[in-house]
Formats: sequence, C-alpha cells, structure tokens
Amino acid sequence: MKPAENLLIISDSQSDANLYYATGFLVGGTVMYLEIEGRKALLLNDLEYGRANVEAKVDQVISTTPYEENLRSAGERVRLTSVLDLFLKEEGVQELTVPANFPFSHALRLKEKGYTLRLRDDPFYKERLIKRPEEISAIEETQRHVEAAMELAVSIITKSTIRGDFLHFDGNILTAETVRTAINKFLLDQQCQACETIVAGGEQGVDPHMRGSGPLPAHQTIILDIFPRSTTTRYWGDMTRTVVRGKASPAVRKMYQDVLDAQNLALSQIRDGADGQDVHESVCALFKDRGNVNKDMDGKKAGFIHSTGHGVGLDIHEPPRLGRVKAELRTHQVVTVEPGLCYPGTGAVRLEDLVVVTADGCRNLNKFPKMLEV
Amino acid sequence: MKPAENLLIISDSQSDANLYYATGFLVGGTVMYLEIEGRKALLLNDLEYGRANVEAKVDQVISTTPYEENLRSAGERVRLTSVLDLFLKEEGVQELTVPANFPFSHALRLKEKGYTLRLRDDPFYKERLIKRPEEISAIEETQRHVEAAMELAVSIITKSTIRGDFLHFDGNILTAETVRTAINKFLLDQQCQACETIVAGGEQGVDPHMRGSGPLPAHQTIILDIFPRSTTTRYWGDMTRTVVRGKASPAVRKMYQDVLDAQNLALSQIRDGADGQDVHESVCALFKDRGNVNKDMDGKKAGFIHSTGHGVGLDIHEPPRLGRVKAELRTHQVVTVEPGLCYPGTGAVRLEDLVVVTADGCRNLNKFPKMLEV
Repeated sequence: MKPAENLLIISDSQSDANLYYATGFLVGGTVMYLEIEGRKALLLNDLEYGRANVEAKVDQVISTTPYEENLRSAGERVRLTSVLDLFLKEEGVQELTVPANFPFSHALRLKEKGYTLRLRDDPFYKERLIKRPEEISAIEETQRHVEAAMELAVSIITKSTIRGDFLHFDGNILTAETVRTAINKFLLDQQCQACETIVAGGEQGVDPHMRGSGPLPAHQTIILDIFPRSTTTRYWGDMTRTVVRGKASPAVRKMYQDVLDAQNLALSQIRDGADGQDVHESVCALFKDRGNVNKDMDGKKAGFIHSTGHGVGLDIHEPPRLGRVKAELRTHQVVTVEPGLCYPGTGAVRLEDLVVVTADGCRNLNKFPKMLEV
Repeated sequence: MKPAENLLIISDSQSDANLYYATGFLVGGTVMYLEIEGRKALLLNDLEYGRANVEAKVDQVISTTPYEENLRSAGERVRLTSVLDLFLKEEGVQELTVPANFPFSHALRLKEKGYTLRLRDDPFYKERLIKRPEEISAIEETQRHVEAAMELAVSIITKSTIRGDFLHFDGNILTAETVRTAINKFLLDQQCQACETIVAGGEQGVDPHMRGSGPLPAHQTIILDIFPRSTTTRYWGDMTRTVVRGKASPAVRKMYQDVLDAQNLALSQIRDGADGQDVHESVCALFKDRGNVNKDMDGKKAGFIHSTGHGVGLDIHEPPRLGRVKAELRTHQVVTVEPGLCYPGTGAVRLEDLVVVTADGCRNLNKFPKMLEV
C-alpha cells in the first residue's frame, strides 16, 4: 500500500479550482490548505477566519495570527512559509505533495527550511474528471442559461436590418459590444458571469480568441462563443454558434457543412473508453479529406488550428482534452465538441456543444439549433 | 554593472498581470514569455499566433508548432518545457529569472534539463508600482464608473420602503442579489466587469469578504464594496460605503464616526515618503483609543481585522500595502484607504476611497458622499 501523502495548496480559490473543490470555500486572498493524514486544515488570516469557520468544508480552520505574533516577537520576518513552518513543526510533517501550479517562491523557501516537496501533476484531484450527479446538474443549469443567452444574441442579429455592409438595430449600427453586453447582462440576471464572451464578425473570427469589436458585418460569419460560470455553483458552461445575417458565400457554406459534419462525426465517436486523441484525429482527417488544409496566411495560422474539445467543470478548460494527446474518455466526464475552420478572406466557422460521456455514447446538453443564415 | 537577467514567465495574461503589463496581450491560455538581453519574445500555439502578431507589444512572436513537430518526430513527449528547451538551446540561454508565482512543475522540469532558475520576488516589475499618467487615467475612469454604480445602489436602498425588519422595493423584498445585479449590469454597460461585488447587510457584513445574500435588513448596516475592472483598459477601481436604511443604533453611529475619523487620519498622512505601516498603525491606535478592541466573538474575529489599504492597478490587490509591514509610499502610487470595524451583534462599517499619492499629500479619486443613514 502506498503511504498517505500530505497535500499542500497555497493559493486563492477564486482562481484555483483545486482549492475550491477541496474546501467549497470561495476566497480571493491567498490561504494555505493542507491534508495531513486525511485531515483537512485551512490556515488563513483573521479577515477570512469567521467566514471560513462557517463555509469551509474542512476539519480545522486555523488563524495565522498567533503564529505571526510569535514570529514578530522573535524578530523574524512574517512570511506565509514561516507561518507554515511553525504549523508543520507542531504537526511533525516534513514531506509535502504540491500541485503543478504551486508557486516557485514558496517551494524555494520551504526547501530552504528543510522540507521535501513532491510534485503531483495535473489532475491534482483525479476525481474532478468524473463529475458527480450534482456537478453534472450544475453544469447543465449553467448551460441552460447559455442557450437562453445564445437565443437572445441570435434574435438580435436576426432582427437587425442590413444596410450596406453592416447590420443595424434599433436605429444604430449593431456592434459586437452591443451584442456582448446584451448577452452578459442577461447572464448576470441568471447569476452567471461571462468574462470574455466572443462576438466576432468577419475577419475578427479568424483569430479564434478575438473577442470582437465594432460594427457587425452583413453577409459574413459572426462567431458567438458564450462561456460563463455560475456565481452560485462556480461551474462553467460553454457553447458556440456561427451565423451569417444575409447571404453566406459558397465558400462559407461549404466550411459550415464541413464543420457540422466534423462535429457530428466527433459526437458519434464519444463514449466510455474512447480516446480523445482518436476523436480529434478523425476530425482532422475529415477536414483534410474535404480539402481544408492548414497553412500560413497573412501572418496568421489558417485551417483547423485548435483542438476538438476540452473538459468543463470548475475550470473552463480542464482535462480531458480531445486533442493531440491520448486521453481515455470515461462515463460522466463533461467535454466540449468544437471543431472549427478559419481562413483569412473567407471567414470562420465554429460549432460547439457540451456533452456528458455515457457508457454507449454521449448526452448532448445543447438543443439550440445550428443554422448558418439568419 | 549588474549583468542583464533573462526573464521567463509561463502563464496566461487574464490572471497574470505581469504578463499583461509586459506584453499588452490578453490571452486566456498558457503562453511562454521571455526577455532575452532586453528582447521580448512570446512563444505560443497557433490558436493565439495571429492575434499575438497584431496585438502583442513584443519583438518576436513564435509558434510552438515547429518545435512540437520536432519533439513528436523524435518520439519525445510534447511539454511546454520541452518546447522551451529547444528554443533556449537555439538562444544559448541557460539561466533564467522567474516570478514568485512561477509554477513548480515547470521549475522542476527546467532544472532537470540543467537550467538555473533565479527567483525575483514581487514586485516582479517594480515599475508597476509607480503609475504612468495613462495608467492613472485608466484607474480614474474605472473609479468614475464605480462612483456612478454606488450612486445607483444607494439610490435603490434610499428609495426602498421599510416594512418590519426588511427593505422593500418595487413591491418585493429587496435582496442583496437584486442590488448586486443592478450594480454589475450598470457596470457592464460601462465596459466594466465586477466579479464579487459585496452587498452585505447586518451580520453578513461582519465577515469583510462575505458577498451577501438574501433580504436586506432595515435599521442595520449595509456594506457596499464595488471593485470592477475595465474590460478595455484592464485597470481596476475599488470603493466601499456603508449605509443604514432607517435608524442606526448609537453603537453603529459611534462605529461610523470612528471609521470616518480613522479614514481622514490616514488620508492626512499619505504623501510621498510616508510609510504605509505608520499609516496603518495610526489607524489601529485611533481605534484602540476609542475603545474598539480586537477580540474573538462567536467563532469570528471582531474589531479592525484587515489592513488599512492596498495598491490598485492591473491587480485589484497589489503593492504597496498599508499594513503591518514597512512600505514607503511614492508619488503616483495608487492605494485604497479603507479602515473598518465589525462586531457580531452590532454590525460592520467600512469606508474606502482610492487615492493617488502626491509629493505633499494625496489626490482622492472619490467624491461620493459619506453618510450613514439614507
């Protein structure tokens, strides 16, 4: 039997999903979390102490203040790692397992004090990959709000009028900002927070992570990628649609069909035991067969330039990936399926659904239709 | 003369302000940033390549793809640090300076490959502490939106009617969620993103970082702490007010006066050359003189349980701190001034302004009035 490891995370749980997963405690400032022989302890300052006592799902909440006072009395500098050192000496712990993102500065100082640190690579908590029923419900709930936000965005674009090269709405030029703000405000009403909602028209969509700005073009692709997190459950949703208000060019129509076919192919392959790399390679092969090659164009990378999907949970991007590395899919994992093509001068198409892996396939959390021209 | 250091950051610039400061490039995925003999280079995947070529203020944007293909051909595992290793060999670099938050996993793998890593403690870029004129303008702009959002929130509370123990608005019980959503939606219209806006009534305010939920109480303190970041400039604002709708108790009125006096005392001491620790200790002394002692109450820490202030810029909390550690204040630093008191059973008062340090004092970016009863 493997001896139990003592775990250490020094982080905040607003940015660090492992810490939130372990404690259920949302905190913006840095705290120290330990698992010592299975016992969970949180060391934190007085500002967070009372709230942690009520909210944190741990066995012990400890104020750093007495340790800090001891250090000050001894004329020593107060550092997180000095406080931790005093605590670990009480506990008789000398070896600690830390996550991949453990800060170098703390690692250095703990080593100087004689501690042995072991790296546990991602996923730090393997159990995060397989979602519990309540986690799947939380993701489904966020995704329902994403679908409603998408409906709102597509309805604005559908109702817009075409004047010359641009869309107009409510008497003004319709901009990416207007649509994004409408999406994000709607999501706020559902207690969901969207940070980087993408509304990228025409050439802007060719960079898959361009947020988009300015007037939205008629007769060109508009990428809508909506990925908020619930501020109540902390679980993310993620979904992309591509629309053209007006008439799509034959080249765009072909791209759309190829992406749709690639997505359906990927969806048909996902099941318990399937390999994410195989799924990704099938998508690559389909695109290649249809003549969509990857190339350099105008200082950009064109073609299919990202992976086919990623896990979604307490992080918006988490394992498993459907990409260039082997990744066995398991029942109750939640992954996006989002092939896309982009070519400068033509436009960009991306379609993204979110699915739960099942024993014999997958359950698609999206019902929102896929249509190019609106 | 000190030899030039070669700098390395492996991070994303959505969470890592140093990377954004260095590159002006917003990216949610992990990229590798280097400064080699003063030359700035970004290594990233094809998904971000085209956008980086246009947006990143660096000398060189390099795709990781050719390196990845070399590794695959050689049958080696593709890791960020393996790609980096190939690049650094071309450059003839063996020693690197990394920030405090540099991930332990990458540090370990680079050491295994024979690299020497040196820690540069925070602040990694010292120049971030002294704000340039355009940075001060950006912070001022965000803070103007914060003031307008505060005005909206206070006006909702002022217009609410008192029925029994709770506030009512528009025919419904007024909740923390309603006020927070109104604030956050208003901010979105100003291209500002608020994540954890605090609307904490009564006992909820006693935990300074409790976001607040449920019905807002009459005749008790309501803490409003608004700290969004601009989604265009990426600079934060930060401001807190405390109000009572109805009649404040004598104990709350005394707390309010003590906090207001403490804030004015702190504001009068801030200037170029002042020590943040001295400012904090003056605030502590004033509170103590007025009989506001720190103590444990009902599993909570009560009294003045946080620091007096913190720097604000591309991070919401950054140096310098007005706290328990020496920190010389310099002209064009931007800091909050936010003393507060909280006692279970009585309530919580916190007042926070944002100021720019000047040669002979400070310029307060807040004009919003401070009044307890509304």
